[in-house]
Amino acid sequence: MSSTVGQTIKCKAAVSWEAGKPLVIEEVEVAPPQAGEVRLKILYTSLCHTDVYFWEAKGQTPLFPRIFGHEASGIVESVGEGVTHLEPGDQALPVFTGECGDCAHCKSEESNMCELLRINTDRGVMINDGKSRFSKDGQPIYHFLGTSTFSEYTVVHAGCVAKINPNAPLDKVCVLSCGICTGLGATVNVAKPKPGSSVAIFGLGAVGLAAAEGARISGASRIIGIDLVSARFELAKKFGVNEFVNPKEHDKPVQQVIAEMTNGGVDRAVECTGSIQAMISAFECVHDGWGLAVLVGVPSKDDAFKTAPINFLNERTLKGTFYGNYKPRTDLPSVVEQYMKGELEVDKFITHNVPFSEINKAFDYMLKGESIRCLIRMQE
Amino acid sequence: MSSTVGQTIKCKAAVSWEAGKPLVIEEVEVAPPQAGEVRLKILYTSLCHTDVYFWEAKGQTPLFPRIFGHEASGIVESVGEGVTHLEPGDQALPVFTGECGDCAHCKSEESNMCELLRINTDRGVMINDGKSRFSKDGQPIYHFLGTSTFSEYTVVHAGCVAKINPNAPLDKVCVLSCGICTGLGATVNVAKPKPGSSVAIFGLGAVGLAAAEGARISGASRIIGIDLVSARFELAKKFGVNEFVNPKEHDKPVQQVIAEMTNGGVDRAVECTGSIQAMISAFECVHDGWGLAVLVGVPSKDDAFKTAPINFLNERTLKGTFYGNYKPRTDLPSVVEQYMKGELEVDKFITHNVPFSEINKAFDYMLKGESIRCLIRMQE
Repeated sequence: MSSTVGQTIKCKAAVSWEAGKPLVIEEVEVAPPQAGEVRLKILYTSLCHTDVYFWEAKGQTPLFPRIFGHEASGIVESVGEGVTHLEPGDQALPVFTGECGDCAHCKSEESNMCELLRINTDRGVMINDGKSRFSKDGQPIYHFLGTSTFSEYTVVHAGCVAKINPNAPLDKVCVLSCGICTGLGATVNVAKPKPGSSVAIFGLGAVGLAAAEGARISGASRIIGIDLVSARFELAKKFGVNEFVNPKEHDKPVQQVIAEMTNGGVDRAVECTGSIQAMISAFECVHDGWGLAVLVGVPSKDDAFKTAPINFLNERTLKGTFYGNYKPRTDLPSVVEQYMKGELEVDKFITHNVPFSEINKAFDYMLKGESIRCLIRMQE
Repeated sequence: MSSTVGQTIKCKAAVSWEAGKPLVIEEVEVAPPQAGEVRLKILYTSLCHTDVYFWEAKGQTPLFPRIFGHEASGIVESVGEGVTHLEPGDQALPVFTGECGDCAHCKSEESNMCELLRINTDRGVMINDGKSRFSKDGQPIYHFLGTSTFSEYTVVHAGCVAKINPNAPLDKVCVLSCGICTGLGATVNVAKPKPGSSVAIFGLGAVGLAAAEGARISGASRIIGIDLVSARFELAKKFGVNEFVNPKEHDKPVQQVIAEMTNGGVDRAVECTGSIQAMISAFECVHDGWGLAVLVGVPSKDDAFKTAPINFLNERTLKGTFYGNYKPRTDLPSVVEQYMKGELEVDKFITHNVPFSEINKAFDYMLKGESIRCLIRMQE
């Protein structure tokens, strides 16, 4: 790889030229990393709802042409000036949020919301110089979430790159760089259910299933899945879900159904849908005295969370989490180790698999609700 | 005292015959304790807002005649069958909520909301037989909060009586049996501020000042008091409050004023007013990433807590507490020890002092907002 260091690399990338239109595999130019940046060779990437949401561009200012993708694994090709924690050849996971190591959040044991590198969905350029590292025929192509992993090579802020075990299988740990950690961490880092306890998981998509996996690992004995699609229960069993409630099949509010099933409420609840009603139900279904609900799903901007204050005063707790409270650089290596030791099961999340040239199929699978995660192989 | 064991005791009690009317010192009869009950000789009692609230009976079904009072200290006169943790002569604090020791809440490390003995403001009788132990000329007089300490003798469920250090000064530790522990525990047991951190206290009444005392003991460096009465700041300084905000003096929401004072928000907030707007402000003024707000004040029944869910998703936490999360029997003895060691300052809460015969003066002091705590001496 040494021949490319400091040089612009020509490679294939899946460019999104227009909102909602199929991506086009193009030859693009990827500039070398600047100070504090890393150029990664992406080997695997997978599709997440957030890519689809911004590709559809229904709720935000459109920013095109853009290279999407933020869940991925790869190898460091080269590093910019001042980057000390990574070197060419390292196996790495790029992350949509970062860890500068210097701000109050990075110094806090409780927060992972780095002031400098916190997720920014609007920015399409690098922080260093406000410019893109991607271009085609001289026209800049915007970045997405600072990662843009739908490209054979990408440039990422070094604070957003976690160095992982050199023996980790990149075609598996790829999915740890976003959705799986978000759900997993919501349970193991924030909800922290005790062995033998009860956990309600709202929403059985990838994040909810990862939250269930966290409950399974934690030794929860009752893992109650809540979803509007009953067919999801069968699959969810693989992730530890052993009871199921479809709110549509009940006349009473789902929080009441759950309270009746559990002698007053579950010990923990994790909300992974982003529906405001599910958020309220998740909070109101936890037991008084010790119940804790964790919000993960991202709601609409105008939603208001509303509940009677007595629900708090009866010693319930409500917390929100971002990326499962994992600090990307500090914590991801050990999540990879958990997988390597067989404690955390990752393979079952990867239901589909396509070569890079067929990346648009991954969008189809997700839009049809068929996939949990579709892996995209960058090298055919 | 052995002569009174098993006998009905005639003694003085301050009876509330009618809502809002001055209490009348009467000679009443106090039946002996039944199984699982304790008869206490009350030496000191103090007046709390909850007494006044139910005495005014503006918001609830009136229950009269009644003997109010729930913040007190005394000595065990006799115990009923099966009571093993207390014996005649023990110094003790009666508490308005209890600890049966057997229910899921008592067995949980997190909860103090005992299923059997949880506060019940409507009940005017003993759980054992559904009857009162107080009477005058054969007419029963209702209990209040299971404690009714405005009487020289009272009968209390043994699960609501904490045995304390025999050398503790009862004229001081009296105030630990309700308000002070409620505020203190909200901070030290629930908010748990770290040394050097910032804490906002909403409401500088007795509970809020106790919450501030908890912040002072915890080593918080900025203790910001928020109150609509600026005159309270001067007194609050004694309790560690070193900055003050009166929301009336600002055009912007107080949460914004506090965020600007603290580079994005305080580390912890404790809400001690019961105003729904203060609850929302307390939550919204904590820092993202690690901020935690604790609700203590009791709101109106129809209030709704309302906030944008993103405030949670940015890693803020909201918890409610009841009696500062103290388990009465298990935890109160060590709070008394904290006072004995000089770590916790209690004397400064006791601003007034009256003999039992002048108990109505304590109501006047509180209604005029003059007192933090007015001690009532049962033995003139």
